[in-house]
Amino acid sequence: MRIRPFYFFLIISAFMVSALGQQATPTPQLYSESTLRQLRELQKAALRSDYAYTRTAYLSNNIGPRISGSAQAQRAVEYVADEMRKLGLEVRLQKVMVPHWVRGDERGEIVEFPGMAPGTTQKIVLTALGGSIATPADGSTGEVVVVSSYEELNQLGRERVQGKIVLFNTIFDRRLAESGYGGNAYGQAVQFRGGGAIAAGRLGAIGVLVRSAGGSQNRLAHTGAMRYENGVPQIPAAAVSFEDAETLAYLAKMGKVRVRIVLTPKTLPDAESFNVIADIKGTEKPDEVVVVSGHLDSWDLGTGALDDGCGVAVSMQVPYLLKLLDLKPKRTIRMIAYMSEENSGNGGEVYGKAETANLARHVAAIESDLGASHPIGFLFSGKSEALPYFAPLSAILREQGAAQSQIQPGVGSDIGPLTRAGVPSFAPWFDTRTYFNYHHTAADTFDKIDPKQLGEVGSVTAVLAYGLANLEQPIPR
Amino acid sequence: MRIRPFYFFLIISAFMVSALGQQATPTPQLYSESTLRQLRELQKAALRSDYAYTRTAYLSNNIGPRISGSAQAQRAVEYVADEMRKLGLEVRLQKVMVPHWVRGDERGEIVEFPGMAPGTTQKIVLTALGGSIATPADGSTGEVVVVSSYEELNQLGRERVQGKIVLFNTIFDRRLAESGYGGNAYGQAVQFRGGGAIAAGRLGAIGVLVRSAGGSQNRLAHTGAMRYENGVPQIPAAAVSFEDAETLAYLAKMGKVRVRIVLTPKTLPDAESFNVIADIKGTEKPDEVVVVSGHLDSWDLGTGALDDGCGVAVSMQVPYLLKLLDLKPKRTIRMIAYMSEENSGNGGEVYGKAETANLARHVAAIESDLGASHPIGFLFSGKSEALPYFAPLSAILREQGAAQSQIQPGVGSDIGPLTRAGVPSFAPWFDTRTYFNYHHTAADTFDKIDPKQLGEVGSVTAVLAYGLANLEQPIPR
Repeated sequence: MRIRPFYFFLIISAFMVSALGQQATPTPQLYSESTLRQLRELQKAALRSDYAYTRTAYLSNNIGPRISGSAQAQRAVEYVADEMRKLGLEVRLQKVMVPHWVRGDERGEIVEFPGMAPGTTQKIVLTALGGSIATPADGSTGEVVVVSSYEELNQLGRERVQGKIVLFNTIFDRRLAESGYGGNAYGQAVQFRGGGAIAAGRLGAIGVLVRSAGGSQNRLAHTGAMRYENGVPQIPAAAVSFEDAETLAYLAKMGKVRVRIVLTPKTLPDAESFNVIADIKGTEKPDEVVVVSGHLDSWDLGTGALDDGCGVAVSMQVPYLLKLLDLKPKRTIRMIAYMSEENSGNGGEVYGKAETANLARHVAAIESDLGASHPIGFLFSGKSEALPYFAPLSAILREQGAAQSQIQPGVGSDIGPLTRAGVPSFAPWFDTRTYFNYHHTAADTFDKIDPKQLGEVGSVTAVLAYGLANLEQPIPR
Repeated sequence: MRIRPFYFFLIISAFMVSALGQQATPTPQLYSESTLRQLRELQKAALRSDYAYTRTAYLSNNIGPRISGSAQAQRAVEYVADEMRKLGLEVRLQKVMVPHWVRGDERGEIVEFPGMAPGTTQKIVLTALGGSIATPADGSTGEVVVVSSYEELNQLGRERVQGKIVLFNTIFDRRLAESGYGGNAYGQAVQFRGGGAIAAGRLGAIGVLVRSAGGSQNRLAHTGAMRYENGVPQIPAAAVSFEDAETLAYLAKMGKVRVRIVLTPKTLPDAESFNVIADIKGTEKPDEVVVVSGHLDSWDLGTGALDDGCGVAVSMQVPYLLKLLDLKPKRTIRMIAYMSEENSGNGGEVYGKAETANLARHVAAIESDLGASHPIGFLFSGKSEALPYFAPLSAILREQGAAQSQIQPGVGSDIGPLTRAGVPSFAPWFDTRTYFNYHHTAADTFDKIDPKQLGEVGSVTAVLAYGLANLEQPIPR
């Protein structure tokens, strides 16, 4: 007996629903035959297109680092808007006020340690965390207190922390990342980058260093956002490389270690910037929207190729491919290049707020913000009853090794406001074994993009976007 | 029939001689039974000792970068001498005049390139090459000319090079390195680091950049020695990271690219420094010497753990283990920590010259200077007839996967003067797949040392040294 593909998907869908502990129910037609045919055509075109690759190159090589508030970020806004207009899309710039933090000089040295040659110091590779205040002009100098958790710090108490520089030396679990769980490894490590300055400042520390929250073992410091808290003294905060954390911890076990850190960042008044929003109007339900997105800002150490030039580029590629293939979605597909994901999340917040009245008409939101390694499928944030609705898309993506799907509470920070309002949300599900070796470091550069793998990301993104825009049934939400 | 080990080795030896196209001849006894027993004991002790590991830690973490002429290099001389005295060895410091080049600030930026946002530049990660002159205080600014060979540069000629900054963009062949031939990949790439400033200066360039001569793809610049030539204008020379070479080449294909480089190194008068020489006197032939060595100086970006703290440490470990096991070599074993391998080779030259009259009594020289990854055996520089003399040592090392041996014209730069004078010379033969990812960069730090693999290097070094010191026959030379 030959099972026709569509019924095969129904069986799979039913099985998945059962597997999720739900009652199997007959599923109505989800995608028309012509949509399925078009999706396969779209997949093929995405896998061989160099559109996203060349746009990632331009964003990272020609424009460069795009930290929020910078001239490069503004140039990137214009570039993406121009490219979308070239495709004939309706483009609008949505104003977003963003932090304007500017990195200055940054250097560190160990000025006292067991065994040091007289008159010498040892350089520390460090980088200011985004949002950190500056040190005094001649630096902050203090004894290093090494801890590996908030509990350990708090047990030391004010008496042993006051006037010192705290090093949070919690490892990024590379073996966990190499096992495929890069995001989990990052999640464990990143808490000290965000909250370390508050915990140390509360006990009177004069500065905080955090071991880089990434997998690099190549003397690269990992920047990223940090926070202060009202009522707690603000102290300068920097990340040190894996190697420098190891060295400081080794030396501190032997005796007194003092470091001097110099950071000269400036926090300027918030700047005006923009989300770039470009629509391909739906032919049947133009008021219903599928968002496909990435974020246009980056950190400033590398050139933001992986985080998130490529995510913007694969989003830009969706309308490009639809035009190329003359495919007209039934619902509107909206490309959004969000601004200031890294440094505030303001772009996502502004868009979410502006669309409060239209959230029910946002049928889906997709964001790609975890690099461009091989996608094994997609992550979904929404009701488990909805999963079978995407099985036909997974069946198409199976040919490129991307048939997996999984429910996850949140899948992208810019689309978070939509997700939390009940908009079914999606992200490519990546092999994250290497992403965190580069992410937020100076090595996040264009050469890290593998064109074949980027093609696969572009395909997952395009198939999801066009499939959801043409879905015959509303997604349960 | 049971083949006794000794005869088995004779068979192996005869086979090897045949394989080398030589006539098989009966070999007399090479090592006494007690020597062979002691060698196995020594091997076991080396594989489990942490002596070399902790000394490598001290050299790299507590003393730090040890560029020739620096206070750290001097501190390292004192440290090694003290450690050897603690073992009861006769220690002498041999005076070596060394270059005293001091790195200053260094930065680079692309100040004009296609697509640049108005008012912005893009940072280049670069590092001055050892010996480079400084740029003017406000930097050298010029258009970038990208070439991949001397031929290509010379074809451009003075007209298209004068006043510009040449980028030698020849790749380090990572796939060759990953195939096991790291040294070959390095050999191909390093020529431009050494000679690039001469070739570009001859055509009137105002500066030279070379793509880093190493396998790192982590935004690390690779320093190392460079040369000037009498009669050719001296120009500032720096290495750019893999990523920056890629970006510059990409941009230069699109249009005009100008960079500004600022380098402020200083060349101070030559400094007095020292080789550290420590002897365990031979019991039977104290005037005959086996040298076991590494170099004590390092480049200044990392902490010289791989290059070559570990080579010194495994050399120091040989007398340590002999004392520990109460083994007394028949010939003198001489530990040498050479000074200024990186920046002149003066330590090796001085020792070689001082020993001119004693070269015939140098029965062998060993140097370890390629890191601390798994050794697959040893390299030998000398007559092919000598190879069978070492087969019993290889048979012992086979247990740790280090039974290979191979003839190579030179095996270590400090012992080069000895090798060229006919002293049979040896080096551990390493798996070089990763060494050149760290070598001469800021990431050459202690964490790169795997204690198990370092133990294996220590074992190869100790077995060679003690075996050769106790060899019953003179090595053909």
